[in-house]
Amino acid sequence: MATQDNAGSYLIAPMPARVGLTRSVTGFDQTGAQIDLSVVEERPLTIYLNAQEIVTAMTIGDYPEYLALGFLRNQRMLGDDDVVTGVDYDDELQVVVVRTARQTNHEDKLKKKTRTSGCAVGTVFGDMMEGLDGVVLPATPVRTSWLYALSAAINRTPSLYLEAGAIHGTVLCHQDRPLVYMEDVGRHNAVDKIAGWMLDEGVGPDDKILYTTGRLTSEMVIKTAMMGIPVLASRSGFTAWGVEIAQQVGLTLIGRMRGQRFVCLAGEDRLIRDADPAAVQDEPRKSGRKGGTG
Amino acid sequence: MATQDNAGSYLIAPMPARVGLTRSVTGFDQTGAQIDLSVVEERPLTIYLNAQEIVTAMTIGDYPEYLALGFLRNQRMLGDDDVVTGVDYDDELQVVVVRTARQTNHEDKLKKKTRTSGCAVGTVFGDMMEGLDGVVLPATPVRTSWLYALSAAINRTPSLYLEAGAIHGTVLCHQDRPLVYMEDVGRHNAVDKIAGWMLDEGVGPDDKILYTTGRLTSEMVIKTAMMGIPVLASRSGFTAWGVEIAQQVGLTLIGRMRGQRFVCLAGEDRLIRDADPAAVQDEPRKSGRKGGTG
Repeated sequence: MATQDNAGSYLIAPMPARVGLTRSVTGFDQTGAQIDLSVVEERPLTIYLNAQEIVTAMTIGDYPEYLALGFLRNQRMLGDDDVVTGVDYDDELQVVVVRTARQTNHEDKLKKKTRTSGCAVGTVFGDMMEGLDGVVLPATPVRTSWLYALSAAINRTPSLYLEAGAIHGTVLCHQDRPLVYMEDVGRHNAVDKIAGWMLDEGVGPDDKILYTTGRLTSEMVIKTAMMGIPVLASRSGFTAWGVEIAQQVGLTLIGRMRGQRFVCLAGEDRLIRDADPAAVQDEPRKSGRKGGTG
Repeated sequence: MATQDNAGSYLIAPMPARVGLTRSVTGFDQTGAQIDLSVVEERPLTIYLNAQEIVTAMTIGDYPEYLALGFLRNQRMLGDDDVVTGVDYDDELQVVVVRTARQTNHEDKLKKKTRTSGCAVGTVFGDMMEGLDGVVLPATPVRTSWLYALSAAINRTPSLYLEAGAIHGTVLCHQDRPLVYMEDVGRHNAVDKIAGWMLDEGVGPDDKILYTTGRLTSEMVIKTAMMGIPVLASRSGFTAWGVEIAQQVGLTLIGRMRGQRFVCLAGEDRLIRDADPAAVQDEPRKSGRKGGTG
């Protein structure tokens, strides 16, 4: 089955066993018995754009360079015409510096703060909707067979979530193939790490599908649209504004995708319903994401 | 059974049917059939402290006054000695203004930004750890029978989550009784609304238990400790730093609480294990929170 092969064909896959991403903590279970639990790390990473300190992110700590690049890009602090001359990460200081050929216009972006939803206090520099006016998403068709294949492959992929829980995953996909699977304690960090990878590798968004374990909030939809990716799919639910924005920018928004079920609340026109839902097997119990992972 | 009665004894309970909190959106399911889905609202609320614009929060929109009060309080922009002279909410402008007798010192709080985990880009004004040094949490004992009763009662409570999903819940509890159940698209908004209610009602934290549907990240632990609440319980998982901070400040941290299971990773000393886990019935399927709700 295609998804079987594709599950092993990641360019970047989670590394649940990687040292430093999880920690074993000793506690007690409901019976009072002592247990060792593997929990995900969460550490500060301060992002600089040239000489300017921009933000300190709480992250699991893998791919700091991609996180910094993607964050600055998704916040439009790195414009299309900005040339990145270097990305330097200092593991000891937990600082990453993104250098550009010329000064950027990020200072004025720092003026306006918006606390966004998702589960944490949130901030978006500049107008959340800024940049969306210019966005035109390609009419790339999406086969429902791809969506089912992706969902099955991603749920079957060994991940930090399956290892330790309390983490979000976002996966950049092409047709029925998951390419880059990023995880982070902050859902938006996972998205930003993918944006950073795309920027660094010069990978285009037109024929891509973005899959997330998190909710389809306004901010997730805006980030996906700003990245130029025409399709956003999630096993989680929607917010009204997320749906509204997706409809406005013509992004295909698919949620509550579990087993054979899914709901499309925007961009239905891209869907090619080539799969018979009845033929899709339900999720293996272990891959079910139970519990608010926000 | 105590929980049966207590489930109906909220001072503030979710109002899933309340107009304006959800919206019916038309979409298509996996079979291509048109369906109407109820999705939660998400709208901006700009919080002012006196004449100073502080932040714009994305919120479901209920209890804007509590959200503003609690946010400012949890960010320590409202100190113990600040006298709140008024909280004015303008529904049309989606603005809430908190007025104090004297000028507050919030300006310098705005200088440092930390992007925190949870699912959204996050911001904490001032040092995240600030204020924790002074925190001493009371040695209030916690009966495991209370935790089971609370978990059962909360899962049985009609909520926006059960109605529309994609939302987080936080519940202020006293012993085995859930008192105030707040929900929001932003997990931290739900916590802040509870903090605002406590501030407004003059309710003390010493004998309270805070229950959340979300993950036990550093920020959730810090907020709970800053509120002076000695116990934080969740059906979700932990992050390493969340556990570390809970151990440092002596907060009882209980996670992965589902049915008869739970794990205590900090503050075990407060627990009185008076309940037999084997006697606890498992969760009804419908109350299981499946899908990343982040």
